[in-house]
Amino acid sequence: MTTREILLAAKGAKGALASASTAAKNAALLAMAQALLDREAEILAANARDVARFGPELGAVMVDRLTLTSGRIASMAQGIREVATLPDPVGRVLRTVQRPNGMVIEKTSVPMGVIAIIYESRPNVTSDAAALALKAGSACVLRGGKESYESNAAIVAALRAGLAEAGLPGDLICLVEDTTRASSTELMTANGLVDLLIPRGGAGLIRAVVENASVPCIQTGTGICHIYVDAAADLDKALAIVENAKTSRPSVCNAAEVCLVHREAAADFLPLLHRCLALEHDPPVELRLCPEAAAIIPGTPAGPTDFDTEFLDYILAVKVVDSLEDAIAHVAAHSTGHSDAILTEDPAAAAAFTTQVDSAAVYVNVSTRFTDGGEFGLGCEMGISTQKLHARGPMGLEELCSYKYIIRGEGQVRL
Amino acid sequence: MTTREILLAAKGAKGALASASTAAKNAALLAMAQALLDREAEILAANARDVARFGPELGAVMVDRLTLTSGRIASMAQGIREVATLPDPVGRVLRTVQRPNGMVIEKTSVPMGVIAIIYESRPNVTSDAAALALKAGSACVLRGGKESYESNAAIVAALRAGLAEAGLPGDLICLVEDTTRASSTELMTANGLVDLLIPRGGAGLIRAVVENASVPCIQTGTGICHIYVDAAADLDKALAIVENAKTSRPSVCNAAEVCLVHREAAADFLPLLHRCLALEHDPPVELRLCPEAAAIIPGTPAGPTDFDTEFLDYILAVKVVDSLEDAIAHVAAHSTGHSDAILTEDPAAAAAFTTQVDSAAVYVNVSTRFTDGGEFGLGCEMGISTQKLHARGPMGLEELCSYKYIIRGEGQVRL
Repeated sequence: MTTREILLAAKGAKGALASASTAAKNAALLAMAQALLDREAEILAANARDVARFGPELGAVMVDRLTLTSGRIASMAQGIREVATLPDPVGRVLRTVQRPNGMVIEKTSVPMGVIAIIYESRPNVTSDAAALALKAGSACVLRGGKESYESNAAIVAALRAGLAEAGLPGDLICLVEDTTRASSTELMTANGLVDLLIPRGGAGLIRAVVENASVPCIQTGTGICHIYVDAAADLDKALAIVENAKTSRPSVCNAAEVCLVHREAAADFLPLLHRCLALEHDPPVELRLCPEAAAIIPGTPAGPTDFDTEFLDYILAVKVVDSLEDAIAHVAAHSTGHSDAILTEDPAAAAAFTTQVDSAAVYVNVSTRFTDGGEFGLGCEMGISTQKLHARGPMGLEELCSYKYIIRGEGQVRL
Repeated sequence: MTTREILLAAKGAKGALASASTAAKNAALLAMAQALLDREAEILAANARDVARFGPELGAVMVDRLTLTSGRIASMAQGIREVATLPDPVGRVLRTVQRPNGMVIEKTSVPMGVIAIIYESRPNVTSDAAALALKAGSACVLRGGKESYESNAAIVAALRAGLAEAGLPGDLICLVEDTTRASSTELMTANGLVDLLIPRGGAGLIRAVVENASVPCIQTGTGICHIYVDAAADLDKALAIVENAKTSRPSVCNAAEVCLVHREAAADFLPLLHRCLALEHDPPVELRLCPEAAAIIPGTPAGPTDFDTEFLDYILAVKVVDSLEDAIAHVAAHSTGHSDAILTEDPAAAAAFTTQVDSAAVYVNVSTRFTDGGEFGLGCEMGISTQKLHARGPMGLEELCSYKYIIRGEGQVRL
């Protein structure tokens, strides 16, 4: 099928979910999870074909992301079951207003309709995204990378079998067959067919979507996260937080990339940081230092792009700042608006930072690594929004919904 | 100043509002209102120059929209004062979560930052939009039409004088000097400088913004609103509602353009409709009829575009449908997602219509003319959103805000 035919099929199917009960949606999710387990052999075989075909041209990290195992399929099924346990985000009355003329206005959460997701190599995104969209009452159109096409097709076939078993149309979960750039472009410009487009992937994909999409979209992901060690920081706490934010999982978007240190704390803190990250940590963290930091500890001189790079690696850019205001100004100039932290025991400094730093998550004495739907208590998430329209930070089920106003009366007219 | 310089000035000024108190913002609004009144003579003189220069090429309706009077300036000032009385939308804690590790997450409403508004000839939009943006904590960059440039400049000069008197930077309210298409294009693509773009105007402007904007934007306005007279409608109520929705103010987006009538009601209802709208109403309403309706009452045969046209005039397209399902399908195919109504005494029909019709406002036995921030009890509005992302229906102060997560702890790290 062409991408347009697939979009029309999804649009045709979405009505079946608009009025589906919570029980019906949860039954479908459980059937989808079971179908994944039942078809493990086909899915692993399809995945093996993807790995055999594209593995040689991918690096080891990408091959690892692409490869499915029995355990990973079980995790995907478990992820779907967890979505079934979450509260239904659709049909909630968000606000009720009775007007003086007697009409009653209910602001009510409703599905988006058709959610399109463009993503890269990890096939587990296929089941995660489909499950979240379904629970949020929307059909989904999935456009994965060419490296994982066979895996995605086998996963989608299983999920559609689960839908059929639960009496729902298979076209609620559609996979785009064309994995060239043409299909991405078509999704970005399918006004009237795509109600929400979510790109999940690297900075290049996100930028392409922001620049080219005419359908409503949400910018996700890129995280140049800062940690500012204030003059009034508790240095032991600060060291533990910076180490955690940098090294607990460097490849993810909520990992810290930049450490700003107040001049008054630099002479004490930087040697602790150097010992902890560069000398004692395994693997060692490369410190890229501004000239003032380099006068205090050894490291690599920071180059012109080091304060604007999402390293996603054991690398930390370090800069000494003159004041809280300088730290806030540096964050304003260089942050991607994802997650930024201040470490301080001074409530006034914390208040200034949280008010003035314009990021999705602003932390006081906590590691940036917590920006995550599960850690925030929202349940599963579709991604982390770094834009200010609609959803900001982790996007859970509520953020995948829209709302409408339903107004009931007995013949009211406007005077 | 170039448009880019103006955007940079607004971005530089926005910080002054991020931490401004409610009292400070309200004081500024009252000073702005007073400054408009104090400078009435200059504003009227500037407006007279606009009318003299562009009036000859504009129609009577447009000249009326462009023309300011002492009374209209007083209304603008009063509108600003009303914004001052509304609750502050910024700094509300929307949700608090204490996590098991002790960290506390507050989802908090925050300003957008810089809101750009592209609009057409009515100069009162200048003060309305500036007042709403200010109360919502954002700087605004206003790009009005060339016909009203002198009026807008005089109004903005007054508003900025009010800001200065209240101790706030004038660059919180900026007027774009270039009124060619180049400045609109620049606003649409000023990523990093414009946090939200709102077009207010005709369908051509809205379409240009949707197709070309890479900054976050909200689609407003176009309303092809339907009223469906069900088989179980109370025909007296129905007639009063259709008359109100069509004729009380035909030029606005929440006026009805299409009446769908269930086959079982057609023989009784259509003659009533014809007598009321075509014979007795002054001015008469032209009915554009589907063949089945034309077999019952006199009128103009509907042409191929009549069910997809926002007439904004004393014209109503009328179609007989076979069933509730057909009515819902017609609305799905032809509505702009603004406001659609069912008139029925059957609760099951009402429930099906409100669930399945995917519009910002869905009415049961109420005129579509109520889709309006004031009528909904939201206070003033920036426009009516017809998209599903972020805001839907009337956009009041809350809809002009974003949110962020503020997370406070005592050294929490992620395991």
